[in-house]
Amino acid sequence: MLLSALLTSVGINLGLCLLFFTLYSILRKQPGNLYVYAPRLVDKEKSRQQESGDFDLERLLPSAGWVRNAWQLSEDEILSVSGLDGLVFTRIFTFSLRVFTIAGVIGIFILLPVNYFGNQLSDDFDHLPNKSLDSFSISNVNDGSNRLWVHFSAAYIFTGVVCYLLYNEHNYMSAKRIACFYSSKPQPHQFTILWFIETSKIQNLINDADKLYRKLGWMKSNNHSQQKFRRDGFLGLTGRKVSLSDHYEKKLEDLEDNVRDGAEFIGWRGAWHQFLEVPAAFVSFKSRLGAAVALHIQQGVNPTEWVTEQAPEPRDVHWAFFSASFIKRWIFKLVVPVACFALIVLYLIPVVIVQGLANLDQLETWFPFLKGILSLTVVSQVITGYLPSLILQLFMFFVPPIMLTFSAIQGYISRSQIERSACSKMLWFIIWNVFFANVLSGSALYEVNVFLEPKNIPRVLAEAVPGQASFFISYVVTSGWTKLSSELFRLTPLVCSFWKRLFSRKDGNEFEVPSLPYYNDIPTILFFGLLGITYFFLAPLILPFLLVYFCLGYIIFRNQLLNVYAPKYETNGKFWPIVHNSTVFSLILMHIIAFGIFGLKKLPLASTLLIPLPVLTLIFNAYCQNRFLPLFKAYPTECLVKQDRKEQNEAGMTEFYDKLVTAYQDPALMPVQYARSTDRDTSPLLHSTEV
Amino acid sequence: MLLSALLTSVGINLGLCLLFFTLYSILRKQPGNLYVYAPRLVDKEKSRQQESGDFDLERLLPSAGWVRNAWQLSEDEILSVSGLDGLVFTRIFTFSLRVFTIAGVIGIFILLPVNYFGNQLSDDFDHLPNKSLDSFSISNVNDGSNRLWVHFSAAYIFTGVVCYLLYNEHNYMSAKRIACFYSSKPQPHQFTILWFIETSKIQNLINDADKLYRKLGWMKSNNHSQQKFRRDGFLGLTGRKVSLSDHYEKKLEDLEDNVRDGAEFIGWRGAWHQFLEVPAAFVSFKSRLGAAVALHIQQGVNPTEWVTEQAPEPRDVHWAFFSASFIKRWIFKLVVPVACFALIVLYLIPVVIVQGLANLDQLETWFPFLKGILSLTVVSQVITGYLPSLILQLFMFFVPPIMLTFSAIQGYISRSQIERSACSKMLWFIIWNVFFANVLSGSALYEVNVFLEPKNIPRVLAEAVPGQASFFISYVVTSGWTKLSSELFRLTPLVCSFWKRLFSRKDGNEFEVPSLPYYNDIPTILFFGLLGITYFFLAPLILPFLLVYFCLGYIIFRNQLLNVYAPKYETNGKFWPIVHNSTVFSLILMHIIAFGIFGLKKLPLASTLLIPLPVLTLIFNAYCQNRFLPLFKAYPTECLVKQDRKEQNEAGMTEFYDKLVTAYQDPALMPVQYARSTDRDTSPLLHSTEV
Repeated sequence: MLLSALLTSVGINLGLCLLFFTLYSILRKQPGNLYVYAPRLVDKEKSRQQESGDFDLERLLPSAGWVRNAWQLSEDEILSVSGLDGLVFTRIFTFSLRVFTIAGVIGIFILLPVNYFGNQLSDDFDHLPNKSLDSFSISNVNDGSNRLWVHFSAAYIFTGVVCYLLYNEHNYMSAKRIACFYSSKPQPHQFTILWFIETSKIQNLINDADKLYRKLGWMKSNNHSQQKFRRDGFLGLTGRKVSLSDHYEKKLEDLEDNVRDGAEFIGWRGAWHQFLEVPAAFVSFKSRLGAAVALHIQQGVNPTEWVTEQAPEPRDVHWAFFSASFIKRWIFKLVVPVACFALIVLYLIPVVIVQGLANLDQLETWFPFLKGILSLTVVSQVITGYLPSLILQLFMFFVPPIMLTFSAIQGYISRSQIERSACSKMLWFIIWNVFFANVLSGSALYEVNVFLEPKNIPRVLAEAVPGQASFFISYVVTSGWTKLSSELFRLTPLVCSFWKRLFSRKDGNEFEVPSLPYYNDIPTILFFGLLGITYFFLAPLILPFLLVYFCLGYIIFRNQLLNVYAPKYETNGKFWPIVHNSTVFSLILMHIIAFGIFGLKKLPLASTLLIPLPVLTLIFNAYCQNRFLPLFKAYPTECLVKQDRKEQNEAGMTEFYDKLVTAYQDPALMPVQYARSTDRDTSPLLHSTEV
Repeated sequence: MLLSALLTSVGINLGLCLLFFTLYSILRKQPGNLYVYAPRLVDKEKSRQQESGDFDLERLLPSAGWVRNAWQLSEDEILSVSGLDGLVFTRIFTFSLRVFTIAGVIGIFILLPVNYFGNQLSDDFDHLPNKSLDSFSISNVNDGSNRLWVHFSAAYIFTGVVCYLLYNEHNYMSAKRIACFYSSKPQPHQFTILWFIETSKIQNLINDADKLYRKLGWMKSNNHSQQKFRRDGFLGLTGRKVSLSDHYEKKLEDLEDNVRDGAEFIGWRGAWHQFLEVPAAFVSFKSRLGAAVALHIQQGVNPTEWVTEQAPEPRDVHWAFFSASFIKRWIFKLVVPVACFALIVLYLIPVVIVQGLANLDQLETWFPFLKGILSLTVVSQVITGYLPSLILQLFMFFVPPIMLTFSAIQGYISRSQIERSACSKMLWFIIWNVFFANVLSGSALYEVNVFLEPKNIPRVLAEAVPGQASFFISYVVTSGWTKLSSELFRLTPLVCSFWKRLFSRKDGNEFEVPSLPYYNDIPTILFFGLLGITYFFLAPLILPFLLVYFCLGYIIFRNQLLNVYAPKYETNGKFWPIVHNSTVFSLILMHIIAFGIFGLKKLPLASTLLIPLPVLTLIFNAYCQNRFLPLFKAYPTECLVKQDRKEQNEAGMTEFYDKLVTAYQDPALMPVQYARSTDRDTSPLLHSTEV
């Protein structure tokens, strides 16, 4: 790719971005679009009625007020608006900006000149715009040149800087997590664990209890009209369930006495929620410490019979999980990782096949009426040029929902866990199918083959990666920038809203504030980070464009968090470890490529001296895992006790305990929500797919 | 190797074994050898004075009474004699006997005839004794023959049988472990955790306490004679330590109050044992559950500052660990695994170099006076034949102590942990340097190279492993059987004892009962298990010899546990998971070889159909890990509470609590043991190297 071509592409995309920004700044001021651009405000203030009438000219003029608002947003405001998860999300941008500002300074002012004044590539064009982009990359440095030691030092310095920033950020995040815990009011999930019971002992208890309910249910049904009982068979059963936690708690507690040998030191609240097929129960305790003790110590002799898990927030529970049978969950738990692995590794095979099928001749056969149009040179060129990438995009479109479904049936008990798992899956998917697929530019099987011979990986990568520099530079400019402006512009919701207003005329009673799809956005951002880290010393020209990307993202996502998205759950920053792991992986990948490059460039000493770098990075990573990861899994005794003590004598606690008993109730089993209960089983991921 | 050669070797070794057994049965009856062959009895009954005088003819006749005694030993007796660790050790033999009896039946009656009646190898000799051993191996089955499906089925059936037996044994061991826990009296380590404190908060506390002691130590020293204080500077310091736990406990407890925010729910016994350099303390609790709670829940916000570990038995504590500085331990923790890996992988390189140096000419140059003898053909043949293997054995001799030292400086707090870690290290060492070195029969670097190309591993192994069948059969017969008889005969202690009686004439006041060196014996036995499992379907001829090995081992080790070894600590069966892992590894290795073999034998369908086998085995393994491993790490609440309750009102508990305070005291810091305290620092592993 020539420099001039890159500059053209940059110009076009910059223009598009500006256009989108301008349109956005006008459209957002139209009252009709409030549902699209500020659903949070609508939800909060219900102010649409007032504004809709007024009209003034200012509404039609583009303005940059939203940029200022987003810029001025403080961290505390983000915390109050979107919780710690929102803060983690924005910190990804700040962290990346810091990393790539330093990388940019080193790359542009030191590495770029070194690369440019090499003459390994015989470049005939002296004129700058006609220079190939490769002359700015490490490929242009002469083999065996001592200038490569500049790159070598850069790799060490950059790794040190990234690790330092990463440590700081991890430290900051842990502190925030603890601070948020301290400042939070007592919440049901802090006092509750989820208890899976597959022992015959408890099973018998439940059977006993069940018999009781059956008897009572029968008595009840005789009191009610016989017809209703028949029609609402399923709901009649749920009615029984609800009555359980209200009326027969006493009886159940007596039964519990027989089995809580091991737990007499903690007060139980008898909030058993028990289901027909899965003997799982939310068990709440009087203190956070009580819940932690029951969670962390193995209870029974057979650890597979008494399994405990941290309870998610009540709003975060993935209830569909509970209605799946044990065998079904067990099978899915084994099958899903395999299916996910297969999808990631073999994804490109069907794509290539479909791309092969969808050529011009085939289209003419399928749609004869297009023959006239297709014979035009311009049209045929556009189609042959864009059809393959259109197909790729189309396939790509389906991957996030598939990953989400995979995670959902894998057996996680909460939506947040599902999203986190989907987030990791998506990250691997993008790294494999965008990075490695483009770099190795072969079939999926060829890629797999490379990784079966680990000895050759550095060499193969070092040969292939620098060659794709120009592709990834334009990828940042086109895909990266465009994704951000479309995020801001929200084209699909805009069209939908327009359509609705035009035809249905309903005033949006079923309106719901969307939540930020972390599982889709975080991997994308992290992937750009990976590109920056791996190409930092290969082709530093990528860095300015990445910096623009992260700047734009910083502003846009802060704006969206403020106006558009409302959190559906709060994991208290549990997404952060994914960011950490991805960054460490990027660093190691960079080291492997560097190891190969110095070998190819006939500087074997540099290759050898590079070996300590990944080792040190991995030690750093191990330290961070020891130091910070436990905090992201559970809170330490120190915090639990401090918080428990603080609230011991507070007035609201008895009220809170009373509420705790009924905090976890399957919405499908609640009589109020008859209408929704049927939806639940067919679309367990409703909240996520709506986003 | 020809069948006749094998039979000769078997005959010779069987004769040697019988000779050793006969000598043993005579020598053990001589009163002077009681120290060698029955130190346990000596220690227990102190009966040597009575017996030494009597003499009768029966003492000179060989007898098999010891075999009967060993055979009749019941499991409960083993438990009472050697604890659960001894039982685990004997169960390795019972388990192996079960596995290889079934394998033997399948192998000898089904696989062996199938192999023998193939004709892939053109064997010119029709006479049975002249048959090559290879004609009994899978190499003799014709390529692509359908008879290979017999081997295929055997692999599946055998894997199923082993997994079934493994599960049963694991189940049995867990049950025994729990039963032993229930039947044990209250023991200090059950109530105690080891607490590493590197926080400034606690550091300040300790500094405060230290100042106190320093003041008091000064006052004390002024009361004592000035001279004694100077001479016993080191011991004066330890005196201070002891006084700490006796007199100033109260003061310390007050100080503790400031930092036990997070632990008010459990009663502490103020048994702080604190050291100058390492801020580590044994903290005892009033109940087992209290200790478990403090152990399992992360205490402080920074998990690296408050580290807790299970306390070992007082007799099991590796006190040298505490005198190493923090930085030293941290560095060793990183360096030791690398050093151990290097030793395992590169061990053969120096051996080969030394073997190359120590040839006949070199010997003549070094020891000119041997020239005459060396020129004899017989002598030179023996030397060229045996010298390399002698050198190998000599090098081998140093490996177990090295591994033990590695584990000791790696930072384990107890001797049992050190032995367990050394046991795993030795296992890997033997597998790599005996199995793979012989199979791949190349240089160490060639071996490493094979494993860097994982795709080729099955093919390379399938080509190489069957060829070494005859070597490993004779390895079992020579090395295996010999090791057992020398274990029984105890040549080195016998000679030492003889020497002592001849020259020193002391009546063994410093006599110590040895403990079984698990770290050396378990890996050897497991390695024979690995040989059996991998060669089961390749060369079933190995199985009868293995069965003899395990039968002999069963009798001999039971005899030794009864008469010779006394346990120095009790891990309550924690060695078992090593046996489990080794067996699963052997199975997977067998599957990989089988996969390669069916490929080589042109039966690709069988190769493909074999893939589920390792996958299923790994799933089985994962299940076992979930089901049983937690029990081998810590006891569940159910057991702890049951035991705590049982003892709540027992009379001896107050007395026990009083003893608990002083249970953990560094022998080097105890005034009684002045004489021994100097030994400790120079030979931290005294108890193990004596064995």
